[in-house]
Formats: sequence, C-alpha cells, structure tokens
Amino acid sequence: MKLSDIGERKVVKDILSLLQNDIAGDDAAYIPLDDRYLLVSSDMVRKSTHLPDVMSARDIGWFVASINLSDIAAMGGEVIGLLLSLSIPSNLEEDFVLSIIDGAKECVEKFGGKILGGDTKEHDEITICGTAIGTVPKDEILLRSGARPGDIVAVTGTLGKAGAGYLAIKNSIEEIPKTGLIRPAPRVEEGRKLAESRWATSCMDISDGLSSSLYQLSDASGVGFLIYRDKIPVDPLAFRIGRILDVDPYSIAIDFGGDYELLVTVPEDKYDDAKKHVNLTEIGRVIREKDNRIVCHGVERRLYDRGYEHFRQ
Amino acid sequence: MKLSDIGERKVVKDILSLLQNDIAGDDAAYIPLDDRYLLVSSDMVRKSTHLPDVMSARDIGWFVASINLSDIAAMGGEVIGLLLSLSIPSNLEEDFVLSIIDGAKECVEKFGGKILGGDTKEHDEITICGTAIGTVPKDEILLRSGARPGDIVAVTGTLGKAGAGYLAIKNSIEEIPKTGLIRPAPRVEEGRKLAESRWATSCMDISDGLSSSLYQLSDASGVGFLIYRDKIPVDPLAFRIGRILDVDPYSIAIDFGGDYELLVTVPEDKYDDAKKHVNLTEIGRVIREKDNRIVCHGVERRLYDRGYEHFRQ
Repeated sequence: MKLSDIGERKVVKDILSLLQNDIAGDDAAYIPLDDRYLLVSSDMVRKSTHLPDVMSARDIGWFVASINLSDIAAMGGEVIGLLLSLSIPSNLEEDFVLSIIDGAKECVEKFGGKILGGDTKEHDEITICGTAIGTVPKDEILLRSGARPGDIVAVTGTLGKAGAGYLAIKNSIEEIPKTGLIRPAPRVEEGRKLAESRWATSCMDISDGLSSSLYQLSDASGVGFLIYRDKIPVDPLAFRIGRILDVDPYSIAIDFGGDYELLVTVPEDKYDDAKKHVNLTEIGRVIREKDNRIVCHGVERRLYDRGYEHFRQ
Repeated sequence: MKLSDIGERKVVKDILSLLQNDIAGDDAAYIPLDDRYLLVSSDMVRKSTHLPDVMSARDIGWFVASINLSDIAAMGGEVIGLLLSLSIPSNLEEDFVLSIIDGAKECVEKFGGKILGGDTKEHDEITICGTAIGTVPKDEILLRSGARPGDIVAVTGTLGKAGAGYLAIKNSIEEIPKTGLIRPAPRVEEGRKLAESRWATSCMDISDGLSSSLYQLSDASGVGFLIYRDKIPVDPLAFRIGRILDVDPYSIAIDFGGDYELLVTVPEDKYDDAKKHVNLTEIGRVIREKDNRIVCHGVERRLYDRGYEHFRQ
C-alpha cells in the first residue's frame, strides 16, 4: 500500500507496532535517567509545506525551535536545548542561515534552553530538522494516556490564530496578522506548572488541530470526549477572517493545526487551582465511551477528525 | 556571501561563533546531567546525495542509524537509542518505510540501544534525520581537543572501503562489494573501551575522509600531525578498485569519506595496552606545529585537506 492510501497516523502506528517497545506515541520520547525522564523530540519541516514566504529567516528559526519545544512542554518538561540540522540550497546567502540560527536561539533562550549543536547539509529545498531535549521528574511527567471519565477538558490560550494566518496568506488578505502562524509560542511554562502541581491527568500539544488532537488523546487514554462548541476559545482573528471569507470561525479553531496550545484533562476538584495559575479554558468533559461528541446549539453530534495529516489527500 | 562560496565548515564555524556558548564542534553535543554527560547528535541524509540506488530500504535504515551512532562512539558513549524523522514521497510503499525502520532497529539494537521514536512527513525526496542519544561518565568523555605533541595517531579498522564502494558504483564495477559504503559499522565498542580505559587523549569519527578529519582534529587540539603514508591501513578493496581504475589506493583511503572509523590520539606509554584491546593501527605522531605533514617514500610533504565538504564545488 502506498503512503497516500494510508495516511500518516496509520503509518506511525504500524511503525510503533513494528518496534514493539514501550513507545506510547507521546509528544516526545521519554527515557528513564535516574530520578528523571529525559525527553527528546525531533521534527522536520520543509520550505514548501511549513515555511510560507512571509516568514523571515529569523521567523523560520523561531518556528522550528518552537514546534520542537512544544513537544517538551506537552510532557511537562524543562527545556535543556535544541539541536538544528539544516539542509539548504548552496546558492543561499550565509546571512540567511545565520538568521535562522539566531531566531531559533531567541526562542530556545526565552524558554530556558540553548542551542546545543548545529549541522549543515545541501538540499534543493530548505529542510530543517530540530531536536528538542528536556527533562522532567519521573513522577511529574504528562502523558497522553491518563485522561479519566469526568475530567474537565481544557486548552491553553486561544485556537484558530494559526488557521486565520494560513487562510490570510492563501487568500492574500493583508490586514490579518500572521504572527499566530509564524511565531507560535510553545507553552513551556504552562506545561511545567501543570506537571509539577500534578493538576493534569493527560496532556498533548495541538499541532494538527483540536479535532485531530482529541482523537489522538482518545486513542491513548481509551476514553471519549464531549466538547461544548461555544466554549471553545476561538481567537478574534478567526472571527475576523471568518467574516471576510465567509468561513465558520469555529471550524477554523477546531480543524486547523498550528496553534501549539496544550490540550489537557484536569480532575474536577483540581480545576479551580489549575485555572488560577494557568490560562485554561474548559471546553468539555471526558466520557467513558470511546466516542468524540460535540454539542452545538444544544444538539449533540459526532465530532469528526478533520485535522491535518500528512500523505492524506 | 553564498554558501557555495564559503563551504560547510566555515558556515558551521560562523554558526558556533554566533552561538557563543561552549560548543566545541565535537561529534555530538554533550550536556552535563549529574555525573554523566548526555550525548546527542543529529544527522540528516537525502536520497540523491547519501543513499545510492544499490541500498535497500533496510540498508538505508542501517546507514542512518550507523552514522548517528558513530558520533556517540567518537565521544566514548554508550548508546541509549535513536529517533528517526522521515520525510518521504507519498507514493512510496508503506513496506519500504517499515523496512527503513527495521534496518535502523537492527543497527541500534546491535549496539545496545533502541529506536526511541519516529515521525513521518512528506517530501519530494527521501530525507531522513536521525538523532542518536547516548551517555558517558563525565571523566571518560572523548573530545577532539585533547591531542598532545608526542601522542601516537591511530585509526580503527581500515580506510578506503567506503571510497572503493563509491567508485565502484560510479563506474559500474559489479565485482567490488559495496558493503563498506552502505553498511558502515559504528565503532561503539571501540569508543567505549578507549574512553573507560582513558587511553585516548582525543577522538573523532572519520566521516568526511582522513585528511579532512586530521584538519578538524588539528583545529580543535591546536596541534599538527605527521602521518606516515605507508602505515595507513588501506582496505584491500581500495587496492582492488585502484588497480581497475588506475587510481592511487592511498588517496582513496586518505581523501574519501564514509568509513566511519575512529581517529584517535594515544600517549606512547598507553598505546600497547590500547592496541591489545582495540583494533588500532598507528599512522603517525602528534606534532607541536599546527601543520599537517605526510611522509611518503621518505619525503615529507604538506597533507592537503581534500575531504568531502558540503557546498564546496
């Protein structure tokens, strides 16, 4: 079977079952090292798919750093640093490359780490692989597998800002800022707080869209979710671009990826405490049935997995 | 300045000076973690440059794992494992991808680690980023910077087998095996022995060719090397292909990359012990002057850096 017939997530599942070890498909790999877990996550981006022309070289560096740190954040980790493996066309200016590193450095240092190493190769198209390294105390690690029926489902920040930026670029709408898309903020502090206070029962970052993330969390925890559509913290930019393009802003917030917010489940009795310290919005409840439902204008429907997936047409 | 005017190593140097932290340009990044260093190294390969058609999918997996583990070996580390980030065309068969992972798994497990995680993306060309993770006790780490005048310069195994394979493919010479090129063996056990016995004063892996590696070691240690050309352990395959193509087998061994043997310096009084436990061949001496010389038929000449470098025409 060709990859285009299968879709990325099935391929990754097949890879995991091939490996037959204890990789649970979390955001980062976690490796026991004394009383801590070492967290390692690798993510590759390429110019044509991930790096629109509006991104400066510094933006590219920030972006690569950010999406990798986001995986450390989702596990509740502290950031140690980032390795950058750059494959770039040889006719590129050196300043461009140095600015990529500079942007990555800005992001990594802002979140408490440093650039640990770099390597350059040639490629027809800018292709960058970032590897983020972090650690987390063993008893604090946040996994995708801990959600329990009755838990509150919540997200950090707002959703749909990256989707709004993407649609603005695609439709040449200048007045919509693209910052949400090109300079996502990894939720490292939020992840740490949720981890060290043991408020969250499960956590992941929303890289491929809320609907898709809920399906992945559902798979890992063996539970379902009941989401209240009107509680979703839709970003004002999604409303603005929604009006301009006549697109439902909620579907931008639910099905577009790139926001890199955290999706967490928190037991009801801990939620007030958690909300005091982390910018959380309750969007629903964990349910026992492994089924994802969304309530819209009082009517409960199936929530479809419409998030982004590689290889899928 | 365009990258093609500068060359890879100058770019990497500029990146390091931009970062202004303590990255010495060793094979892997090393991060203090209690009484050990965590070793992390990332290396990206792409089909057209690194993965000739004679490589099966399993070979590709082995190769990516091997060149990354080689960086852990060069620092004297134990292997924890490998992360694989695969960017692949969507019309590829899933079995091909699973075989890549299987080949990587074979290599990593052979050297004491496991596959820690995997991720797939789309790309026009197969582009794979491996990240190897290892650890080494702090007082055992092998760096590039410790070579001292008078030390013996030695290499593990033989040189020129990868170069022979490369030339055989390029010139369609079927009778020369390509194993040295497509299935390099990372010298993990050798690196560990050299590290734990504190025999080596400096170490690196020969990925870009012996001449180039000597220049890099010279830069890091602030010393020079006097190499005896006829002592270099040239692989029999380099002699065979040399005869067929009328090419000097010594220049294949000196200037071609891809052998992934270790280049080490060992104090004279420890060399006999080291040689008893590690397959080493003495090829020269560390000299005080930062100048690399080669003795050929009794005549001493300058040794030129003719190794492989990205971006350089």
